[in-house]
Amino acid sequence: MEKGISQAVIRRMPRYYRYLGELLENGVERISSNDLSNLMKVTASQIRQDLNNFGGFGQQGYGYNVKFLYDEIGKIMGLNCRHDIIVIGAGNLGLALTNYAKFEKLGFVITALFDINPKLKGTKVRGIPVYMMDELEKYCKNHSIDIAALTIPKDSATEVAQKLVDLGIRAIWNFAHVDLDVGEDVIVENVHLSDSLMQLSYNIVKNTANE
Amino acid sequence: MEKGISQAVIRRMPRYYRYLGELLENGVERISSNDLSNLMKVTASQIRQDLNNFGGFGQQGYGYNVKFLYDEIGKIMGLNCRHDIIVIGAGNLGLALTNYAKFEKLGFVITALFDINPKLKGTKVRGIPVYMMDELEKYCKNHSIDIAALTIPKDSATEVAQKLVDLGIRAIWNFAHVDLDVGEDVIVENVHLSDSLMQLSYNIVKNTANE
Repeated sequence: MEKGISQAVIRRMPRYYRYLGELLENGVERISSNDLSNLMKVTASQIRQDLNNFGGFGQQGYGYNVKFLYDEIGKIMGLNCRHDIIVIGAGNLGLALTNYAKFEKLGFVITALFDINPKLKGTKVRGIPVYMMDELEKYCKNHSIDIAALTIPKDSATEVAQKLVDLGIRAIWNFAHVDLDVGEDVIVENVHLSDSLMQLSYNIVKNTANE
Repeated sequence: MEKGISQAVIRRMPRYYRYLGELLENGVERISSNDLSNLMKVTASQIRQDLNNFGGFGQQGYGYNVKFLYDEIGKIMGLNCRHDIIVIGAGNLGLALTNYAKFEKLGFVITALFDINPKLKGTKVRGIPVYMMDELEKYCKNHSIDIAALTIPKDSATEVAQKLVDLGIRAIWNFAHVDLDVGEDVIVENVHLSDSLMQLSYNIVKNTANE
């Protein structure tokens, strides 16, 4: 297993994966690091550095084998296994995630949604059942779940996250605007939309000041 | 205007802002960098370094004035002005953004949605009108728009982004899974959900391998 690779490098890998996937779809079999650099608007040196973290996949005078590199990055990112996901919260955001068919192609399969709204009991989203929160424990006992996506308000997120961890879930995709304190053996990946908006507004203010 | 502050530091600012906001709500007037460090699980040295980028707001033996620091970070992040947003795409994700009232408290006000589905013409979401895409040009001429949120599929995103730029929009909050090539004077902030999922799955694989 690779060790000591910075999260910054890991954060760049999905973008490589996306570009390589598009090259593959377009029938490109190999690409030089310069061409990849132009395409991705990243320096060739950055590309070589990034990929060297994983042993490097380029060959002098040949460039990168697109399919091989795509598959290797996929393996590194765990995309060669299926990951079952449950979505906690069947509001707009939960529905948006569930309706996004692209995730399945990457091996991320949403198997159930959970909500507290009794009107949603027994309904389905794209064929995927919506259960009530009081059915969560039973569901977790009978199914293997790799990831829980948390799309519920901040106020209940902490409590629900703890419940998920108690039920054995080891990875949380957290959309609630709160830092979850669930122990070091649980992986939390945050998507904080307000933070992203603030980042945007910072850059707007900076741009305006520099004009 | 501050210059040369790394985007990594900027990316950490919203989290400071969130914690300081919560302290304020709880009536905390000042906090030492050690207490803030414990609360945020960041080293006190990191906190001092981060805040020094902005001139530093701490005083020896006093700590940080919560309200002052909160307001200053707010100003730095452009949260002291109102930002008008239009949402392109009134699907689940567009609705989720529109229904998230928290954004307004931060000064981000969604003023209109746009879609191509004729069934949505004339409807409203939380009082906010949904227009058809062919009304976009007229709307942009008559309203000041700071940010366009792009929640449409990848295939149409590039074209629509160019249209928005042609209509004078200078900041795009992009949820489409594609890199927008819209020129250097346009700010693009990407939220790539698949990338976030891949990051999560990488860490799951790594954790499993280390067990």
